[in-house]
Amino acid sequence: MNDVIDLMLDHRSIRAYTDEPVPDTDIRAAVAAGQKASTSSNIQTYSLVRVTDVTMREAFIDISGGQEKVRDCGVFFVVCADMRRHRLLAERCGCGCEENVESFLLSVIDASLFAQNMALAFESMGWGTCFIGGIRNDLNAVQALLLLPPSVTPLFGMTVGRAAEDPWPRPRFPVDTIMHEDGVASDDVVLAQCDAYDDLMKDYYQQRGASGRTWCGQMERFYEQPKRAHLRAFFESKGVRWR
Amino acid sequence: MNDVIDLMLDHRSIRAYTDEPVPDTDIRAAVAAGQKASTSSNIQTYSLVRVTDVTMREAFIDISGGQEKVRDCGVFFVVCADMRRHRLLAERCGCGCEENVESFLLSVIDASLFAQNMALAFESMGWGTCFIGGIRNDLNAVQALLLLPPSVTPLFGMTVGRAAEDPWPRPRFPVDTIMHEDGVASDDVVLAQCDAYDDLMKDYYQQRGASGRTWCGQMERFYEQPKRAHLRAFFESKGVRWR
Repeated sequence: MNDVIDLMLDHRSIRAYTDEPVPDTDIRAAVAAGQKASTSSNIQTYSLVRVTDVTMREAFIDISGGQEKVRDCGVFFVVCADMRRHRLLAERCGCGCEENVESFLLSVIDASLFAQNMALAFESMGWGTCFIGGIRNDLNAVQALLLLPPSVTPLFGMTVGRAAEDPWPRPRFPVDTIMHEDGVASDDVVLAQCDAYDDLMKDYYQQRGASGRTWCGQMERFYEQPKRAHLRAFFESKGVRWR
Repeated sequence: MNDVIDLMLDHRSIRAYTDEPVPDTDIRAAVAAGQKASTSSNIQTYSLVRVTDVTMREAFIDISGGQEKVRDCGVFFVVCADMRRHRLLAERCGCGCEENVESFLLSVIDASLFAQNMALAFESMGWGTCFIGGIRNDLNAVQALLLLPPSVTPLFGMTVGRAAEDPWPRPRFPVDTIMHEDGVASDDVVLAQCDAYDDLMKDYYQQRGASGRTWCGQMERFYEQPKRAHLRAFFESKGVRWR
């Protein structure tokens, strides 16, 4: 179609890295490009922590459940929702600053749009990337490491570096499974689409040495146990009110 | 730097459109490319509603606070967090499916990564885009229009079409304002960075016919009033539990 779309279609998360460092010029180019993603009313409610300290990197391996790529990659970032600028400006002028469900949602969306643009910018320069949701296993531990002030909330990590693997791209749902017109599909259709996707995933799982695995089988128990139950209280400790 | 980064750097949200239709081939290419964005454990917890019905489009103008581009653009999408596939699969096997803060956050991040990739894919084909957060002015009204089932939650809209304007790109923070090392800046530094950004924005505001406007002035009262206070209850009505 075009080079941008081809780059997107070729996306694979990279989970093994060589020790090649990522030059600062590339990092700054990717961050600046990432920042040009849309941001609601130009609020730009995010910050990026580049973690360079070796001991911190080791600690992030533990937090994220043993993901050694956090140490091995060229650059490890923590992407944060950041309402602090707004809070400080409000305090300076004696105004209020209500961090509620909407402001939290807006910060998360803004930070995610930024991060996806940044990831693709790195990929356009030949670097591999991986989002590390595993830092949410223990945001209190992340807090203890980075000493983030109120209104600055870690959301996810990102590894960047030279790929030491060449994994298959993972097939996604067919377009018609996710795109609908003036409404959405019925429950029956959705279940049939999930089953059909299992057929599409067979080769992928086989190639990964996991024959017999199915997407439906993975997902039906994915949320059986409440996940990361400390998050509500953690976000509250940062200033979020669920109202 | 390269074509992908140049495309990102040239991003402007497009708020005025010609009546040129967007071909289905371009829509399907952008959606498929968008889907290749990272998704946590391949959960793909999002859906896209393409709104074509003329009466619905008019209603979305009202919901989003009079944004006529919702009618004028070639394509109008509503991007939804979608936990329904997981809930239905869990119900089919008699498992539980806990929609809590983590699952909600994950859906929002997934949907946002998808949407940013899709927006950039459209831009790579020469189309203009704009995120429409304004649909969150009244998600109950969105619900009444689209009749979305439980676990399918509208997050934001997106307009796509041929630009009928050529706005200036809006300057973002300098990279060093958002990127930090092993921690973040002090409150004093952050306030100084906000003031410095006002200098950077002067020409932009002047060009937009808003001389004298400042970013700090816009932002200090941005969250003075609680925004969109119905969201907590709305998300609960969709199945989200704040725990």
